[in-house]
Amino acid sequence: MIQSERETAEGILLTDEYQLTMAQLYYRYGLHERGVQFDHFFRRYPDYGGHTAGFCVMAGLEWLLDWMAGAHFRDEDIEHLRGQRGRTGRRVLEDDFLTWLRANGCFEGISMRAIPEGRVVHPNVSLTTVQGPMAMAQILETALLNKLNYQILIATKAARIKESARGQLMLEFGLRRGHDKGANAGARAALIGGADFSSNVGISHVLGYAPKGTHAHSMVQVFMALGESELAAFQAYADVYPDDCLLLVDTIDTLESGVPNAIRVFENLRRRGHQPVGIRLDSGDLAYLSIQAAKMLNEAGFPDTSIVLSNNLDELVIWQITTQIEQEAPRYGVDPDHLIRRLVYGVGTHLVTSWGEPALGGVYKVVAVRDRDAWMPAIKVSESASKTPNPGHKLVWRLYDERGKATCDLLSLDDEDPNGMTQLMLRHPSDHTRYRVVDRGNITGIEPLLVDILDEGREVLERVPIDEMRRRRAADVERLDSGVRRLLNPHVYHVSLTQRLWDLKQDLIGSAMEHSR
Amino acid sequence: MIQSERETAEGILLTDEYQLTMAQLYYRYGLHERGVQFDHFFRRYPDYGGHTAGFCVMAGLEWLLDWMAGAHFRDEDIEHLRGQRGRTGRRVLEDDFLTWLRANGCFEGISMRAIPEGRVVHPNVSLTTVQGPMAMAQILETALLNKLNYQILIATKAARIKESARGQLMLEFGLRRGHDKGANAGARAALIGGADFSSNVGISHVLGYAPKGTHAHSMVQVFMALGESELAAFQAYADVYPDDCLLLVDTIDTLESGVPNAIRVFENLRRRGHQPVGIRLDSGDLAYLSIQAAKMLNEAGFPDTSIVLSNNLDELVIWQITTQIEQEAPRYGVDPDHLIRRLVYGVGTHLVTSWGEPALGGVYKVVAVRDRDAWMPAIKVSESASKTPNPGHKLVWRLYDERGKATCDLLSLDDEDPNGMTQLMLRHPSDHTRYRVVDRGNITGIEPLLVDILDEGREVLERVPIDEMRRRRAADVERLDSGVRRLLNPHVYHVSLTQRLWDLKQDLIGSAMEHSR
Repeated sequence: MIQSERETAEGILLTDEYQLTMAQLYYRYGLHERGVQFDHFFRRYPDYGGHTAGFCVMAGLEWLLDWMAGAHFRDEDIEHLRGQRGRTGRRVLEDDFLTWLRANGCFEGISMRAIPEGRVVHPNVSLTTVQGPMAMAQILETALLNKLNYQILIATKAARIKESARGQLMLEFGLRRGHDKGANAGARAALIGGADFSSNVGISHVLGYAPKGTHAHSMVQVFMALGESELAAFQAYADVYPDDCLLLVDTIDTLESGVPNAIRVFENLRRRGHQPVGIRLDSGDLAYLSIQAAKMLNEAGFPDTSIVLSNNLDELVIWQITTQIEQEAPRYGVDPDHLIRRLVYGVGTHLVTSWGEPALGGVYKVVAVRDRDAWMPAIKVSESASKTPNPGHKLVWRLYDERGKATCDLLSLDDEDPNGMTQLMLRHPSDHTRYRVVDRGNITGIEPLLVDILDEGREVLERVPIDEMRRRRAADVERLDSGVRRLLNPHVYHVSLTQRLWDLKQDLIGSAMEHSR
Repeated sequence: MIQSERETAEGILLTDEYQLTMAQLYYRYGLHERGVQFDHFFRRYPDYGGHTAGFCVMAGLEWLLDWMAGAHFRDEDIEHLRGQRGRTGRRVLEDDFLTWLRANGCFEGISMRAIPEGRVVHPNVSLTTVQGPMAMAQILETALLNKLNYQILIATKAARIKESARGQLMLEFGLRRGHDKGANAGARAALIGGADFSSNVGISHVLGYAPKGTHAHSMVQVFMALGESELAAFQAYADVYPDDCLLLVDTIDTLESGVPNAIRVFENLRRRGHQPVGIRLDSGDLAYLSIQAAKMLNEAGFPDTSIVLSNNLDELVIWQITTQIEQEAPRYGVDPDHLIRRLVYGVGTHLVTSWGEPALGGVYKVVAVRDRDAWMPAIKVSESASKTPNPGHKLVWRLYDERGKATCDLLSLDDEDPNGMTQLMLRHPSDHTRYRVVDRGNITGIEPLLVDILDEGREVLERVPIDEMRRRRAADVERLDSGVRRLLNPHVYHVSLTQRLWDLKQDLIGSAMEHSR
């Protein structure tokens, strides 16, 4: 794709055709500038096959806003659209609509609220709400979902891997296996969710992180093809990077060749006053090999060098490795806790693709339409009650219990404030038999989650560095019940509706059902 | 990400840090301009969990070449790299190397061969070979894998879905669930692999395809929120698009409301001399609903309208739907073949993410290094014999049998030509007990697969439209044995080595093992 093609494919035309045909219909019926509200939310946690997330992590907003700020219908875009023909050869989009689109087809009229990046989020909660003129709010749908769904998915996977890594350093290595340029968004989301650094040079520099990496098998192979040895390759690396010497030891044979050669090079470094960083293992039984390598490094007097593990790691594999180390290391005279604390995890494919569940089913649903002075709540009655969206303008509140743990996300109408209620009725979003009544006195904190980020096209989001998003995520995860944080079969976090929102939803469902009879 | 950040993150710094640290090491040892050859290949077909591909489809080359043509180290990139610090605060990359990189850090010295886009490809076959100066050939690795692995993955998934769709129209709908901008590459690959159109407006225009789409649930909801009905929404759509009227019928209730309302609108259209296009079903039991909808449409005199199905479709779901229709349709007086021939499939999430196996494990391995006048073949001995790459400069040949079906891909040394052999020894790549001897007379065609695409930085690829890549794919799939095309448990297609290549590989493995002792 060359530059001019890129501008076409990544600008305002990063949308689905039906958004344009609907926009023209709204134009034709005088509805194109009518106010509408869409809510963006997902319906269930990612299910990786055998294990399911207990929480998600919000991400992607700033990149969405950057895209929106630059997106508008250029002359070239309009010409493309003018060329569209229907079945009979008739133009799909007509001149008057295209003229309107050329002049008005940007996001200046859009207002948005969102839960900030880094915050822990849950199903059926409005993550972003979009208010604005119908044609452009509709056209925004595809890009909004494209930008947010993926980053939330990856921040979530990263948070799980970080949980499993017991606080050890975790590196994002996925660029070669990510989905084309999407891998950059994945690296950003991974950092928000829990990766400490990335190997991806460009995106690391953009985000202010030091990219991480040392060498590949190919370096050792090159030396060997030229008649040199693995040892010579390691020594060369140590000579060029004496203070940052981390050696990949599995090109030939990890325990017979790689680790002994690394130790020889480390001894040379030590004699010259440098501290070696460690080794990387990229194949084989990583638990067994790390125990044996640790034993060899310990015996050679390098007990503090890191052991970096990579090769299709994910949260369960890391869990398996640390469990196996706890069981087996003592047998070889290696302290398992000490070994686990020197491990570093390089996570590639399974993080950047969210292996097992490579898409978040985030949706963007009409919840209200402006009719003269009033907002009319809208609903879509789905085949299953749990899929029916919550209608109308809503607020999102997080309730904290006596322990300071988050106990529930509560959706209310936008004129409700649970702070003023003495008793809170928490209704299940779809099951009328399930509700809780909670005394206000048992709630230690009520926090509104949505913040204004765009006010009629003007950005009002207070942008923060990725580090701050990481702090938010860490703080939110700390305030989750340990059952919700569990990697397998997590407790289901409660998302509830207030009684008034529940009543509105039931009314709308009833009248929609009436319509179909 | 704003424009300047995008240029940093998507240009030459779309690479892994270790490529740069290795490149500096090569520079330090005078190896940076030494010739090297890397081969790009994958080791196994995608395994989607319960079903595995029997062939893959090559894709992504032109976009890789476009990226390479524009990529070089700009002053801003060099300044980013200059800022990198190691553990002790010392610079990671030093001035002399950065000066060299600024002047020479582009792909002008690179030559490439590749199997053209659209061709069917198999494991352990060199899909692209890269020859060039060591530093830049190494730096290229990450971007090459990023651009090619994903498009091959998606073209492959699309080809499977196309097989399952029995020649019916298949539409790519994945933009909202793709991985950020990667979704554009996915749409392109889907078209190469078998999708007939995409809903993605921008990329369709770039590639010269008409983007497809009609309307969403939101349009019906808007009308209903304003006190109108589904019927009014449908009628509005028909008024604006009388010759392209395809209606989404599941917003309220498919059979009770959506289909009857669509039929009323179609009758109006017919009276006015227009032919309705059809309906779309996006939820529920798609087989059952399509039978019932077909029955209603038939009875109303619309037997030729399309029925578009969408909602988490993939090759197995489509197979299930058509099988169920074959079994159930007669019971309702609907001809199953007629119904199947009016179906159109909209495929989103499962195609654009290659659900079940969201990454192709393509790798890029050193196979030869230049030493004075000679090329020294290189090898990496892996834990399992099947992972050890095939060394040296190689050619790839496809052999066709008496039926004209592809029977084997044969890797040879680059001075071998199987056309001149009276008997062909076909050795399994890693299992020494498995080989076939075939008479040249039983082979009806021997086709070289690799073509020159880049000659020292100059593009020599004959670019063709996507349609031509689609024809290549269709022709190659036609020439596969039906067992290889099977969706479940496909026959394993043979990839073999010539005797001389086999001998070279064994020699190198032997001497590498010697090294480790």
